[in-house]
Amino acid sequence: MDFAYSARCNDYLARVGAFMDKHVYEGDEIYERQHQAFGPEGRWKVPPIIEELKAKAKAEGLWNMFHPNPKFGPGLSNADYAPVAELTGRCHIAPEVFNCAAPDTGNMEVLMKYGTPAQQEEWLQPLLDGKIRSAFLMTEPQVASSDATNIETDIRRDGGDYVINGRKWWSSGAGDPRCKIYIVMGKTDKTAPTHAQQSMILVPANAKGVKIVRHLPVFGYDDAPHGHMEIVLENVRVPKENMLLGEGRGFEIAQGRLGPGRIHHCMRTIGAAEVALEKMVKRLLTREAFGKPIYKHSIWEQRVAEARIDIEMARLLTLKAAWMMDTVGNKAAQAEIAMIKVAAPRVALRVLDDAIQAHGGAGVTTDFGLARAYASLRTLRLADGPDEVHCRAISKVEFKKHSNAA
Amino acid sequence: MDFAYSARCNDYLARVGAFMDKHVYEGDEIYERQHQAFGPEGRWKVPPIIEELKAKAKAEGLWNMFHPNPKFGPGLSNADYAPVAELTGRCHIAPEVFNCAAPDTGNMEVLMKYGTPAQQEEWLQPLLDGKIRSAFLMTEPQVASSDATNIETDIRRDGGDYVINGRKWWSSGAGDPRCKIYIVMGKTDKTAPTHAQQSMILVPANAKGVKIVRHLPVFGYDDAPHGHMEIVLENVRVPKENMLLGEGRGFEIAQGRLGPGRIHHCMRTIGAAEVALEKMVKRLLTREAFGKPIYKHSIWEQRVAEARIDIEMARLLTLKAAWMMDTVGNKAAQAEIAMIKVAAPRVALRVLDDAIQAHGGAGVTTDFGLARAYASLRTLRLADGPDEVHCRAISKVEFKKHSNAA
Amino acid sequence: MDFAYSARCNDYLARVGAFMDKHVYEGDEIYERQHQAFGPEGRWKVPPIIEELKAKAKAEGLWNMFHPNPKFGPGLSNADYAPVAELTGRCHIAPEVFNCAAPDTGNMEVLMKYGTPAQQEEWLQPLLDGKIRSAFLMTEPQVASSDATNIETDIRRDGGDYVINGRKWWSSGAGDPRCKIYIVMGKTDKTAPTHAQQSMILVPANAKGVKIVRHLPVFGYDDAPHGHMEIVLENVRVPKENMLLGEGRGFEIAQGRLGPGRIHHCMRTIGAAEVALEKMVKRLLTREAFGKPIYKHSIWEQRVAEARIDIEMARLLTLKAAWMMDTVGNKAAQAEIAMIKVAAPRVALRVLDDAIQAHGGAGVTTDFGLARAYASLRTLRLADGPDEVHCRAISKVEFKKHSNAA
Amino acid sequence: MDFAYSARCNDYLARVGAFMDKHVYEGDEIYERQHQAFGPEGRWKVPPIIEELKAKAKAEGLWNMFHPNPKFGPGLSNADYAPVAELTGRCHIAPEVFNCAAPDTGNMEVLMKYGTPAQQEEWLQPLLDGKIRSAFLMTEPQVASSDATNIETDIRRDGGDYVINGRKWWSSGAGDPRCKIYIVMGKTDKTAPTHAQQSMILVPANAKGVKIVRHLPVFGYDDAPHGHMEIVLENVRVPKENMLLGEGRGFEIAQGRLGPGRIHHCMRTIGAAEVALEKMVKRLLTREAFGKPIYKHSIWEQRVAEARIDIEMARLLTLKAAWMMDTVGNKAAQAEIAMIKVAAPRVALRVLDDAIQAHGGAGVTTDFGLARAYASLRTLRLADGPDEVHCRAISKVEFKKHSNAA
Repeated sequence: MDFAYSARCNDYLARVGAFMDKHVYEGDEIYERQHQAFGPEGRWKVPPIIEELKAKAKAEGLWNMFHPNPKFGPGLSNADYAPVAELTGRCHIAPEVFNCAAPDTGNMEVLMKYGTPAQQEEWLQPLLDGKIRSAFLMTEPQVASSDATNIETDIRRDGGDYVINGRKWWSSGAGDPRCKIYIVMGKTDKTAPTHAQQSMILVPANAKGVKIVRHLPVFGYDDAPHGHMEIVLENVRVPKENMLLGEGRGFEIAQGRLGPGRIHHCMRTIGAAEVALEKMVKRLLTREAFGKPIYKHSIWEQRVAEARIDIEMARLLTLKAAWMMDTVGNKAAQAEIAMIKVAAPRVALRVLDDAIQAHGGAGVTTDFGLARAYASLRTLRLADGPDEVHCRAISKVEFKKHSNAA
Repeated sequence: MDFAYSARCNDYLARVGAFMDKHVYEGDEIYERQHQAFGPEGRWKVPPIIEELKAKAKAEGLWNMFHPNPKFGPGLSNADYAPVAELTGRCHIAPEVFNCAAPDTGNMEVLMKYGTPAQQEEWLQPLLDGKIRSAFLMTEPQVASSDATNIETDIRRDGGDYVINGRKWWSSGAGDPRCKIYIVMGKTDKTAPTHAQQSMILVPANAKGVKIVRHLPVFGYDDAPHGHMEIVLENVRVPKENMLLGEGRGFEIAQGRLGPGRIHHCMRTIGAAEVALEKMVKRLLTREAFGKPIYKHSIWEQRVAEARIDIEMARLLTLKAAWMMDTVGNKAAQAEIAMIKVAAPRVALRVLDDAIQAHGGAGVTTDFGLARAYASLRTLRLADGPDEVHCRAISKVEFKKHSNAA
Repeated sequence: MDFAYSARCNDYLARVGAFMDKHVYEGDEIYERQHQAFGPEGRWKVPPIIEELKAKAKAEGLWNMFHPNPKFGPGLSNADYAPVAELTGRCHIAPEVFNCAAPDTGNMEVLMKYGTPAQQEEWLQPLLDGKIRSAFLMTEPQVASSDATNIETDIRRDGGDYVINGRKWWSSGAGDPRCKIYIVMGKTDKTAPTHAQQSMILVPANAKGVKIVRHLPVFGYDDAPHGHMEIVLENVRVPKENMLLGEGRGFEIAQGRLGPGRIHHCMRTIGAAEVALEKMVKRLLTREAFGKPIYKHSIWEQRVAEARIDIEMARLLTLKAAWMMDTVGNKAAQAEIAMIKVAAPRVALRVLDDAIQAHGGAGVTTDFGLARAYASLRTLRLADGPDEVHCRAISKVEFKKHSNAA
Repeated sequence: MDFAYSARCNDYLARVGAFMDKHVYEGDEIYERQHQAFGPEGRWKVPPIIEELKAKAKAEGLWNMFHPNPKFGPGLSNADYAPVAELTGRCHIAPEVFNCAAPDTGNMEVLMKYGTPAQQEEWLQPLLDGKIRSAFLMTEPQVASSDATNIETDIRRDGGDYVINGRKWWSSGAGDPRCKIYIVMGKTDKTAPTHAQQSMILVPANAKGVKIVRHLPVFGYDDAPHGHMEIVLENVRVPKENMLLGEGRGFEIAQGRLGPGRIHHCMRTIGAAEVALEKMVKRLLTREAFGKPIYKHSIWEQRVAEARIDIEMARLLTLKAAWMMDTVGNKAAQAEIAMIKVAAPRVALRVLDDAIQAHGGAGVTTDFGLARAYASLRTLRLADGPDEVHCRAISKVEFKKHSNAA
């Protein structure tokens, strides 16, 4: 047993940390200013600073660190990447700067694993190069998508093409003008066994029949220009070569995609929780009430301590899940991944809520970014499967240990 | 002991309910559409529907129901008004439609209690008539305003005038173009005993030196055109007649103001929680997952039951506090008011969080109003004193029961 | 709406309070000393003080206050009795002193409502007179008794008799040598519709075939001489006249019994929570740590305040449920009774846990009675239906409001 | 980073596991039976099975595994011992069987670190050999011992002796007839600086003036023959050579002792939580309610999953603290030790409470050991410093990171 980060991990931590100190935190402010300067009608334009920073990060080799395969980047193990990802979770634009942002990472994962050489050349390469961005069209407004078998989008073979009809929402990133490719989940055969009805298919964002209906604010934030979009697919026609892996194998792909995607979110969530704790502590140190500094009021001692404890525990579980992905594989690490998917946002939201309380009115407004982080992390209790579904999966493992009935 | 609402209360409940069914719920949608139609640059304009509805409500005598004194309206007791206020809490625009909205009610309370006839004629009457709106300038960004003795705004006598300097924020409602008068808390004598330094003074919104610096979004919502503003007061000069009650009596006024204001918020909060529970239940009834309707998953049975239990308890405590204000007076009801100030938002936030979870992605976006309600109610754990301060006050009562040291 | 206790309630509160101050609190200590003096082999004997105090209470007319029907006692309404019951909840022996103790009250209720004149003469009258005690044999160790349809005890007609076979546990009070009569729930017809299989029948404690197998400690408390017994019924034969109400009507009786029984427990639970809060406050006032009295540490301000808030809310809900029983009947008050059945123990356990923490090591041992109260109240989350079953029932009401499917 | 247990750890896990399967679980039942057979007057006698099992364990080299120094046993690192300790936490008698039980381990630690050769020969060696047992006399009933500077026991030099006067309680293990030596904390100089007043001194259990006043039950459990005793020291005279380390160095010793002691408790607590989860799962698998197995009710899916998540996280934090003790030392690991001291009992109590609920009435009684485990672990939130004190310490570290004032 060894809780120390590896030399390689520490090296990347140091380099990413230095890069962030030098460029990214300041870049985040520039990004905000540039975005503000576009005015209300320019919210869906991309502030130019982002591409400048991407170029710099790429030049320094801090690029595509998310994938363990050295073919695609430095090839950090999940365990080595986890602390790096945590670091990028401290700053809004950081993941994109290093080309490690959702949903691109998950979509690249799919293309790496299941894409044909042609599909990889056309879509994976530009994603790896940071030239385009992508979206994942899964959730549908009309059904409980927590149970993915409910999905209704229709993918029908028609000669050499597939024709797609459906309505998707929470297609995050589809608001970005650089978003060029969608991975769409739908049903190719509603008469097949429950888990063999679904397929995934590649749909270019500019395909005829693709209509972005609206953006979905998260609490009051539009998250522009990234955005979470509602998209109607009306008789969208793509060549049959766009099918991923084969008809009826959508569930298999979904499984392969979600593990890494979930854990990256969790790693960054730990980083966000650390920032919240730091801000809470700093705030408490600077204010007085009822005759003494607020940090000396014991209610805050308790809350700060609980935040620290919870963060430490959530981090360790995240690291362990990452290590298991490296050592026994994503599938065998499924229960642990589900656990942190539940635990990390829960911990971070609790810390954030206390941090908000510590800041008084400043906590709920924009000045410290706490309310925005809260809103953003609240969605993680729903995205990629709500807590209840993950808890269901975790419990099944426990029940199976003691029964062949469960 | 009698838990039944009085005949008078039931009569007003029926009339307000009918009025809301007929005009207000639909009006709320019209309001949103009109506001949207103004476009991004018109966010701080007031949708015309609101004044139309106010005129109708006034015509039907559903006006100024918030105050027990029949001089100012129908003169409902607090206990009779509480269920009516709860009803208005179900709908965003309702409180204003009936001229029962914060912060006007609290400000009118101050003017009724402590205003001179001249002050009443100039500011109270137009407020009672719904012709103008008002703001309350208390909290300051630089200090922990949870301890009101920290407040730094300077009010200095200069001949026949007072000259005011300071920076205020969370001045809710000051974004509204109809907002014409501010009640400002500041210090007239920093050498006086701790609770005799503060004074309250009337400052017209258009006074020279008043500068609205920015609006403070709440979890991304600007709450326009109402708004929560940051305001700089720079050498603002008002005649000495604008002083309320007398120099050094600001704390006394604050006490008198806050009781009713807090309880009205709590009453409406119960209404908001009821709406959230209703929405949660309806949603659960309409979706299926894993082979059965979601409402049949026992985790939701527990959450719905807990919501119902918590709402019932919080409502009863609110009603009791209202009844005590009627029977033993606002001062003797102080502990109970503090209790619901803590309990009501806490309960409502818990119900809302579960309701969000029940709605999946729809919960965090605008479609069901849940995220917005969450954001708005989260501020109630800070506004008019954070939970910690109220708990401190409640605990002091308990400690005093068993000690003369505490 | 009127939150004031009635004059009659206040009169009984004053009289019961005075009687407790004069006799019962001291009696409680005498009871403990007498019980201790019996030594380990005398744990199931009854300390004589209890009958002395019963005689006194009866003489002062503070007797059988639990039932609203004046035929059986003073005939206090449920709402008037609730605060009195709360008062008796402050002291271990008090309920019995006033002949208002479980499970006798519930069993008397059954005999009042469903007993024949002969059954009433033989068993109800001595119970009303405090001459005997009783037990209720419902729960069974082999099945999930949370779903009462699972109950397996067999009641078979045999000529002019019924023959009963089964195993019961948590038969509280059956340890007391004065316990002379059991009400037993079992099945007379396993082929009948689900809710018509059960019957209730009277079984004298000394009937042949009744075997008390053991007592069940609660945490480590034997609760002697009351006790919670496991009882085997082996070919126990009773005359057919012992059947209550008629074969197949056991569920109906259970419903009629449980409402009042549950609410009495809740009323007393509020009293127990009040005592815990008092003890917590007193302890905090007397100790110092880290340079100041512990009550000045703000973590305790929060906990004391939360205890006060929770107790107030739980009390109000209990009172409302009682008032509904008086005004609309036990059946219509079912949801409210379920709510307090869940809420009251939860609140009391939270307060007790904090009180334990406030007392340090003294909290978990016998000196302040806190651990014992905790153990005892923890069973209330299971007795008379576990929380989950009550929450299920409460949620059904909510679902039904918005659907005819639920 | 490596989450795998070392080969050495796995070896000991396997051997201890096999030994437990073969001897200890069954031994636990024998122990209970032998103890019961002593009758009420024999509760403070030690069932003979324990010494038989100790001899066996010693023979197999599964002895004194708690200490990293190979001079005293196999010399497992803390990280290697942690999973072994967890295993022993599954069974009541296991820690003692392997001579790894509190408070002996902590007391041996003190003697190893601070004992003179003579002290070691007289007391350490027999403890290492399992020939005697020991107690630690720290907490006092009259003062808030959470702040150890409050301690009042007087240790006064008198010629070649020290004379000790004071009252101690929660002297765990002092009920055991084999308990021969106490380590006593007291004050040698009340005028010295706050943390230099205290000393620790060795007091033989049979010294004149030592009077065991009573045993303190924990939630009704006497924990005999171990016991938690209240002890009066009245003019107890010991030779000056019994002083540990030197006058005024009691705090230093307390610091050195508590780290390992705390973490051993936490390790075992994880084991107890695992057992509770197992029992909960097994129970849920075997019962039906409302038409389906209880484990299929989704409320239990959530609770089981939360238990699993919380246990995993608490275990990882415990392991990390152990690893830090090995790598950076007990002092540098102080914050982490404080964290698990708070987290582990909290997690275990939550799991136990749910497990109790899952078992219905069987949960609160003796049949499954859950209530007893709850009672025992509840004391851990108080023993060796209450949660509040550890949280205070943890928060100080956080505040210091961002300030030199804190």
